[in-house]
Amino acid sequence: MKALVYDGSGKPLWAEMAEPVLHDDTDVIVRVDTTTICGTDLHILAGDLPEVSVGRALGHEAVGTVVQAGAAVRTRRPGDRVLLSCISACGSCRYCREARYGQCLGGGGWILGHHIDGTQAEFVRVPFADMSTYAIPHGVSDEQMLMLADILPTAFEVGVLAGNVVPGDVVTIVGAGPIGLASILAARLFSPRQLVAVDPVESRRQAATRFGADAVTDIPADDTVRMLTEGLGADVVIEAVGRPESFENAVALARPGGHVANIGVHGHPATLHLEQVWAKDLTITTGLVDTHSIARLIGLVADRRLDTTAMITHRFPFDEFEAAYDVFARPVQTGALKVVLTRTG
Amino acid sequence: MKALVYDGSGKPLWAEMAEPVLHDDTDVIVRVDTTTICGTDLHILAGDLPEVSVGRALGHEAVGTVVQAGAAVRTRRPGDRVLLSCISACGSCRYCREARYGQCLGGGGWILGHHIDGTQAEFVRVPFADMSTYAIPHGVSDEQMLMLADILPTAFEVGVLAGNVVPGDVVTIVGAGPIGLASILAARLFSPRQLVAVDPVESRRQAATRFGADAVTDIPADDTVRMLTEGLGADVVIEAVGRPESFENAVALARPGGHVANIGVHGHPATLHLEQVWAKDLTITTGLVDTHSIARLIGLVADRRLDTTAMITHRFPFDEFEAAYDVFARPVQTGALKVVLTRTG
Amino acid sequence: MKALVYDGSGKPLWAEMAEPVLHDDTDVIVRVDTTTICGTDLHILAGDLPEVSVGRALGHEAVGTVVQAGAAVRTRRPGDRVLLSCISACGSCRYCREARYGQCLGGGGWILGHHIDGTQAEFVRVPFADMSTYAIPHGVSDEQMLMLADILPTAFEVGVLAGNVVPGDVVTIVGAGPIGLASILAARLFSPRQLVAVDPVESRRQAATRFGADAVTDIPADDTVRMLTEGLGADVVIEAVGRPESFENAVALARPGGHVANIGVHGHPATLHLEQVWAKDLTITTGLVDTHSIARLIGLVADRRLDTTAMITHRFPFDEFEAAYDVFARPVQTGALKVVLTRTG
Amino acid sequence: MKALVYDGSGKPLWAEMAEPVLHDDTDVIVRVDTTTICGTDLHILAGDLPEVSVGRALGHEAVGTVVQAGAAVRTRRPGDRVLLSCISACGSCRYCREARYGQCLGGGGWILGHHIDGTQAEFVRVPFADMSTYAIPHGVSDEQMLMLADILPTAFEVGVLAGNVVPGDVVTIVGAGPIGLASILAARLFSPRQLVAVDPVESRRQAATRFGADAVTDIPADDTVRMLTEGLGADVVIEAVGRPESFENAVALARPGGHVANIGVHGHPATLHLEQVWAKDLTITTGLVDTHSIARLIGLVADRRLDTTAMITHRFPFDEFEAAYDVFARPVQTGALKVVLTRTG
Repeated sequence: MKALVYDGSGKPLWAEMAEPVLHDDTDVIVRVDTTTICGTDLHILAGDLPEVSVGRALGHEAVGTVVQAGAAVRTRRPGDRVLLSCISACGSCRYCREARYGQCLGGGGWILGHHIDGTQAEFVRVPFADMSTYAIPHGVSDEQMLMLADILPTAFEVGVLAGNVVPGDVVTIVGAGPIGLASILAARLFSPRQLVAVDPVESRRQAATRFGADAVTDIPADDTVRMLTEGLGADVVIEAVGRPESFENAVALARPGGHVANIGVHGHPATLHLEQVWAKDLTITTGLVDTHSIARLIGLVADRRLDTTAMITHRFPFDEFEAAYDVFARPVQTGALKVVLTRTG
Repeated sequence: MKALVYDGSGKPLWAEMAEPVLHDDTDVIVRVDTTTICGTDLHILAGDLPEVSVGRALGHEAVGTVVQAGAAVRTRRPGDRVLLSCISACGSCRYCREARYGQCLGGGGWILGHHIDGTQAEFVRVPFADMSTYAIPHGVSDEQMLMLADILPTAFEVGVLAGNVVPGDVVTIVGAGPIGLASILAARLFSPRQLVAVDPVESRRQAATRFGADAVTDIPADDTVRMLTEGLGADVVIEAVGRPESFENAVALARPGGHVANIGVHGHPATLHLEQVWAKDLTITTGLVDTHSIARLIGLVADRRLDTTAMITHRFPFDEFEAAYDVFARPVQTGALKVVLTRTG
Repeated sequence: MKALVYDGSGKPLWAEMAEPVLHDDTDVIVRVDTTTICGTDLHILAGDLPEVSVGRALGHEAVGTVVQAGAAVRTRRPGDRVLLSCISACGSCRYCREARYGQCLGGGGWILGHHIDGTQAEFVRVPFADMSTYAIPHGVSDEQMLMLADILPTAFEVGVLAGNVVPGDVVTIVGAGPIGLASILAARLFSPRQLVAVDPVESRRQAATRFGADAVTDIPADDTVRMLTEGLGADVVIEAVGRPESFENAVALARPGGHVANIGVHGHPATLHLEQVWAKDLTITTGLVDTHSIARLIGLVADRRLDTTAMITHRFPFDEFEAAYDVFARPVQTGALKVVLTRTG
Repeated sequence: MKALVYDGSGKPLWAEMAEPVLHDDTDVIVRVDTTTICGTDLHILAGDLPEVSVGRALGHEAVGTVVQAGAAVRTRRPGDRVLLSCISACGSCRYCREARYGQCLGGGGWILGHHIDGTQAEFVRVPFADMSTYAIPHGVSDEQMLMLADILPTAFEVGVLAGNVVPGDVVTIVGAGPIGLASILAARLFSPRQLVAVDPVESRRQAATRFGADAVTDIPADDTVRMLTEGLGADVVIEAVGRPESFENAVALARPGGHVANIGVHGHPATLHLEQVWAKDLTITTGLVDTHSIARLIGLVADRRLDTTAMITHRFPFDEFEAAYDVFARPVQTGALKVVLTRTG
């Protein structure tokens, strides 16, 4: 079969590799029908994640069809259409028992396209299949599901739920890239009073407005938010960038008693101005997605309460995978949010 | 009357000043029977809080007797023995309505001995008396109550409740000064499995053991905590120091999914190693005490579930106030935790 | 002035009575601009609430203008346009400190039009004005505000928040009268997956659909709900009727682990089938509205996230108060949901 | 091997039956070292649970040693000493993902000694071994662990956690049989202010005092509780009997805003006096134990924070199983709380 292989060259390579086989009784083999690229994949290509071995098939998001199921798999059968979670879960470790699958101590967590071969391939082995795959309701398309593998649960769980958004809140989202836009969609499920997106790039602010932001601003966002809140600051601030200055801005934008939910993947430490906030009753959260919300989000998509397809800006067949990476890697020029790759024939 | 006056000299001064009078209909005037000194008072003397005016009577903790009540006071009458909260509360602003009295927007918050004259005096005016004073049950002494004005609610609310301690947790308390020791008392109400205190000073570690710590260690505490938790880290870490390095240590000691509750008063920013913890599902909280738990803590003291009198190491009459400050300011030499000042005659 | 007086005859009487005067320093006198009638007012007229004295002015919902403020009122001034909460709150008792104003032990709770004269009058005395009135934002009409005095907070707090509705839930509302319809509006703020309304009356089911129900059914609702939930039952069931059989139906409709939130005012005991539900992990809640959510709901109305004006089916001037009662008392014939009374000139 | 077999005669029978064998890859076979009898076993013998087949080995609590592990079992190996949970869990259904194992839809829940052969036997097959067994720390005896299979988690989860006990609460426990006494132990982990036990039997009230109740009373308990709470009622009431009148008493004893946590197994409906409590802000919960707290409770026992061995009043070898049932079935005469059966040789 073919797969998008990390070869250490810095370039994506759509190349031949061996088909996966069942390894554990709880595995399934899935034929990948639709997959997508994540910003993290670009970091792997750039060599930023040294734990990824050369020769690894990338990708941790997909919709596909089960072709083979291990002896101990109870809920999936060949022919089942499934959504693959970006997070695998052993199910029985102390973290999985709290639905903190991202912290799985039993061999799960983020392993697809990271510690084992991933979903940017014609076939993929999925460990812990009962825990890590989700049945797709009739009448729902692959594209409607695909954003539920990673980006929507991330925005919903690590941003909106951790930030404790409730109806009537003023919510500020720092960063209007794909994860920030997904956070707008996710936050709207809780009917905030005002949703303010902060981004220095004009085209991203326009996208934020299209996704439902009530106000947009470039950094620093102080005045917009304070005007809406009688000077207090936002109830919830979601950091969706991953840079020290955006985190520091997020903390500065929160009101006393407010929440700062960090989603961004950070490569450097940030300064926490405790001399300013020690008495401010802040709650700051960090987190990796657990994807515990996937079944709930599937219900919302199936019943047309949530539509994530506006995240998809470009579509390619599998054999144009390298071109897809190129488009995705240059979002300012291409306008790419999420690019979708689909099996043909 | 006499009061402990901030005169800008850097030294505490027990001096004559005018008796307080009712200002608002919701005020009471209280005769102070017992009061104590807080570390913050030392900072005021040192000039670290420029918002404090010269001439201000210090102090924000006391037990006393109501001598006069404003026309709109409904629950206090002359002769009532009351505990004064360190935090005043207007009761009707958005923060008071959530019991976040420390953030009061209506003229309360920490005002006693800060923006208005305080409790280290023979008499004190207490605003918002219905919200900011607490009846003392029969048979409970002033000393049993006094630690509930500030230090116990701070440990309980900002440390233990914000940190979400539950039975069976491994709790680490960074800093075994008065507030750290109070955190040990408060955490024990939730039956942690192991309570580890971290302090570089031998005598403070000994005090921690006396107050109920199961293990003590000097910084860095890594190995003690990790041995108890199969390498994961503590469920809850309470920062009770207020220095960048102790906060950074606190964050490092927390397990994935754990809580870091900052109580310490910080004068400098800290480094938050987001590159290490962005995916670690941490919850970090800051906060000023609200004293919403005072009624609950009074019940626990009255029914002998909680005894805070071990915090009191030294006792003085009012006219030795300056000596009391001296003892309190040199804890390493004197062993002082809390010093109590009592009216005589 | 004139007021709608309970005279014990069973009929509403729009009659002359003395104008209210300030009684406590924390009172305001409000000129009533717009008010409405509640089902409870009909019960008072029918003599079902013997604690209501003959001669009492009825009504506990209004928008008005402050004409006089007591000496201890800090946040309201003559000329202020305010929303009156149906619940008064002393602010300092143990219940008010938890924002459970409906349980106030300090002289508040539901007193307007119950223990003291109410809002169906040209003027009304409002105790605890800082706690019990709400400023109205510019540009928002009386009618947009009026439903926030009682019915919307009741649906939001006692139904939706107590029932713990979260995005993706299947929510069943038993009863599609005014409070059931308000529950539909309130539940939609949390983006349920499916909202099912149960009512035996065809016209009420049609109203439910107009207010946003996804499915409607007559009692028993079993099949509709079970089909949507793979036989499990609803995540949340809101009882909005107040009869034994509707409560019992609500309990039967909840899934294992689900919530039953009772809003209905009951006059008779119900049977709780513990032999069926003891092992079912149900959470059943009862409650009187606290109106702690009014400020939040005002923000949602002001920013056009919530529109409650569809609740208003009929409008009358004050001097047609008796006709308004007649229309409201015969909803099946008149289609009345809420009738609004407005001052003229 | 021998087992305690339900033969439909109404009498316990210690009889020969076939040894269990592995059925699914996720099973283990455990040699039972120590087991105990539950009140439910008496109900099965009496024919009250018709779903139990004749020929079934009873029992759902045990400590034992793994003798064989299925191919897909990841965390248990022959020779491991384990605690068996009374609840089995598939791990991946919607309920198991929320740690509501008692409601498992995937073949778990309460199955041992109910739908499959149980633990009152020399050997037992345990499904879903990774989810349903717990490693026992070194130095902890079988008897210290045995109460964590069912009775302690039931009291902790269904009583204390569902009832939301917090430090300083007044907690009332209706019924001082084994589950009521376990609730006393569990509630004390949260430092209530007063713990009141209600039971009509003098010897049980004495036991309640030994287990840590601060006050005991016979039904009706009204005055004791109200005296402690200024007439309001208890913060939390735990129903540990399972009869209509005890549930109704529990509801009557709760304060406005309080919790009623039902643990009792009910055979008949109860009357819920909604005409009295509709406005009282009550939260009433029902539930089957999930045993999600077992790991936490093991930690507390291992670190000597919790000692459950006082529950054990009688000890027998396996071959006196029938005598043990006799003692357990006549608690008033024998004083039996829990009887323990131990393998010999």
